[in-house]
Formats: sequence, C-alpha cells, structure tokens
Amino acid sequence: MNYQKEGERIDDLGIAGYHILQKPGAFCFGMDAVLLADFAEARKNEQVLDLCSGTGIIPILMKARYPEAVYTGLEIQEEMTDMAERSVRMNGLEHSIRMIHGDLKEIRSLLPGNQMHVVTVNPPYIKGVSGLKNQTEAVTGARHEVLCTLEDVLAASAYVLRSSGRLYMVHRPRRLPEILSAMQQYHLEPKRMRFVHPYIDKEPNLVLIEAVKGGGPQLTVLAPLIVYDAPGQYRDEIYRIYHIRKV
Amino acid sequence: MNYQKEGERIDDLGIAGYHILQKPGAFCFGMDAVLLADFAEARKNEQVLDLCSGTGIIPILMKARYPEAVYTGLEIQEEMTDMAERSVRMNGLEHSIRMIHGDLKEIRSLLPGNQMHVVTVNPPYIKGVSGLKNQTEAVTGARHEVLCTLEDVLAASAYVLRSSGRLYMVHRPRRLPEILSAMQQYHLEPKRMRFVHPYIDKEPNLVLIEAVKGGGPQLTVLAPLIVYDAPGQYRDEIYRIYHIRKV
Repeated sequence: MNYQKEGERIDDLGIAGYHILQKPGAFCFGMDAVLLADFAEARKNEQVLDLCSGTGIIPILMKARYPEAVYTGLEIQEEMTDMAERSVRMNGLEHSIRMIHGDLKEIRSLLPGNQMHVVTVNPPYIKGVSGLKNQTEAVTGARHEVLCTLEDVLAASAYVLRSSGRLYMVHRPRRLPEILSAMQQYHLEPKRMRFVHPYIDKEPNLVLIEAVKGGGPQLTVLAPLIVYDAPGQYRDEIYRIYHIRKV
Repeated sequence: MNYQKEGERIDDLGIAGYHILQKPGAFCFGMDAVLLADFAEARKNEQVLDLCSGTGIIPILMKARYPEAVYTGLEIQEEMTDMAERSVRMNGLEHSIRMIHGDLKEIRSLLPGNQMHVVTVNPPYIKGVSGLKNQTEAVTGARHEVLCTLEDVLAASAYVLRSSGRLYMVHRPRRLPEILSAMQQYHLEPKRMRFVHPYIDKEPNLVLIEAVKGGGPQLTVLAPLIVYDAPGQYRDEIYRIYHIRKV
C-alpha cells in the first residue's frame, strides 16, 4: 500500500521501526515535539490525548516508549489530520492511536470529560499574528495562536483530564508567568519543569512543564537540559532522546 | 569606637573595605543574599528599599557596587535592626544607608507610596511553621513566614515602588507558580529570572527574579547560575560574585 501523497516525505524515527510522513513547506515537527514526547510519561492502560497533534509525532513516539497506553490525537487542520492518520496506518498502529479531526475549542462535543489520564500538547507559541511572512496557512496555525490560544488549550485539558491526571506541555520561557498563572486558574498545578538551553551559558528557548489536575502546590524545577556542547555537537542526553548512537 | 556587642562577630566582605556584624546562632546571611545583591541593579540617585533586611547585608553589598544610589533597609526584628545599624556606622555609611525598624505589613505608616525605584528582598521561604526545631526566634522569623508572607512582601513592594520600578527577589523554585501568579496580581510583571543550581546536573535550590511594576508580559529566563564544578570548587562566576581571587 502507498501511504504517501505528493509533496510528502517518509522519515525514519529510529525507534521501534516507526516512520512518519511529513510535508516540507507545510509543517514538519521540531526538536520541541521530540523533547516533549521524552518528558511525558504514560503507564499501562492509561488514556493519552495529544492536542494540536499535527503530524501525530508525539503519540507515535510515545507509543514506542509506552506501548501499553492508548493514544488519541486531536488536530484542527484536515490535511494534517489525514497525513497523521496515514502515518498511524503506515506503522500498523491504528488500534493504538486514533486521530480525530476537530477543534479543541469544541472539545465538549468531541470527547467526554474527566476521562483522560494524560494530555500532551505542543501548542502554537506566538501570540496573535505578528511577524507573519510568506507562511502557508498550516505553518501559521501551528506557530501562531490563530486557531487556539493558551487559554483554549488549558480549558480543553482541564475538561478532558480526570482528577490527578497529568498535562505535559512544551512552550516558550518568555510566556512562563502567563502559563503558570493560567494553569493555576484551571486547577492544573505545575509540578515539574525543565528548561532547554541550546548551550550551558545561553538562555533557554523551550520549557517543558508537567501539571497535575487538582494537585497541591509544590514545583520541582529540574536540572537544565542542554542541547549542544559545541556547534553541531549534541550532548549525550540529546543522543539518548533521539535514539542516535553516538559516533 | 566599638560597634560589636557580645556574641557578635565582624566579617570582612572583601569589597570596598566593608565589614559586617553577624551573630552566629541568631542569624547570618547566606549565599542567597550575596547572589541577590549581585543580581540587582541600582542607578545613580535611585532610591532602593531592602525589605526583610536582616543584617543589612544587601544594601551594604549593593552600596559597594552602586555607590551613587540611596539605600533604606526595613527590618521587623529590633535586635537585628540595631545590629544592621551598627554595621552601617562601622562602615561610615550612615549617610547612604538608613535602617528602619518596622513591620512591612504596616508599610503605609512607615514610607510614602510610589517613591522607590528599586526594592530588594530575601524573604522567609518556608510556608507556616512546619519543620521547626530548636531555632531561635530570630532564625524562625527569617526563614518561616511567621512575621510576613509572600503576599505581604509583594503588597508592600507594589505600594512603595514607582511606576516601572524594579523588584529583585530571591526565593525557592518550588514556590514559583505561586510567586509568578501573585506578582502578576500586584502588577509586578516578572521580566528576568535566573535559577541557581548547586551543580549543572542538579535541580536549582534558588531562583532570582526581577519584576517591573506595570511592565508588559515578556519574561527572559537567563542561563543557569551553577555554583560548583566539584565539591568545594566554585565556578568562576561565583568567584567573581564573591570578589574572591581564584587560587
């Protein structure tokens, strides 16, 4: 069977023999998705929902690490959902990962409340539509808060998660005060946080956050995740996360 | 003249020839105060208020780095205020640093509003009085939120600061969600944040935060401040902050 459409390419994920379809020029996943899939955890029989699922990269990578959880991906863009669905079938994962095409702002009509053990989300980072250049609509929707805002994401997460359910999010450190305040308003208590720095002496450009629905207030900030030792030279932890054998 | 009372010792601060009185068993300043004094900035003629001033260590260290600013320290414990005042006189700084004995919860009767350019504060970190052992009252007041809470500190800061005035605080990372939310409620917008890790692969035990009264929402998280390379072996930045010549 041919799962690939025109303009798409198939990439080897280097784990569990899985591959993924991506469409250069439309949207490809970045390091943020890979780091989030590594930061998140899912136990046996847990229900995991990935919001803003895009190419489906997060449930596919998590399925490789936590094969006994059950995954759902929700994506608003139809072409992206279709591509993610074909990636799922291409890997023979149609019984483990279900893709839903829909708008998380209408989550109540799509999924029942208080059912999910885990939510993962790599949402658009940028407020509004400033800095837009010749981007495709798919890229704009993935990067800018035009299809959903931070608040929409947290409202949907708070709705689908059961009590003590975990939310795993990746975002930009510059929006942290807003993120932590809004999480608390939705009773999603930040419990674990890790900053991702390109180099040890540089500002972080990503932050990974775990919040627990109805959790008590006590945050653990983890040791920094540092990507490079020198230009082009990943640190050991990145090799581990990417399942690359160091040469 | 003899500034020293029984049970007190005089320590050399290693900068500008300044010394400080401390009372072992009551309360001595820690690395947190030194890091905060280094993180904070004060320009010429700016008015700087140090809340929970304790031994007066923060205004004395800042005076060494920013000699053209004017400093006030507010301290609720009478014995501590008296000791800080003698440290100020011992250094001949009575025209640059004024110590006030008073309760920051009654700041409105102590100081005018909207006058300060800068507030510094190394507040008690621990909620309530859990984990109390054979501590003196002075130590309890400095470490536990018995004499003032985080909210009291932020309310006082918001009151004394002028528009665009800066608050510099050191605290525990585990309370970060609460700190950032409460700062935003008081329109003290977090703008700069730096985590202090004992080692590069360890969780941070301190966080330094700069907030701006009435500032816009955009946070910069800085590169991590890492204290040790190996047990007992400071990293170069710590040598710089402590004004110690590396041997």
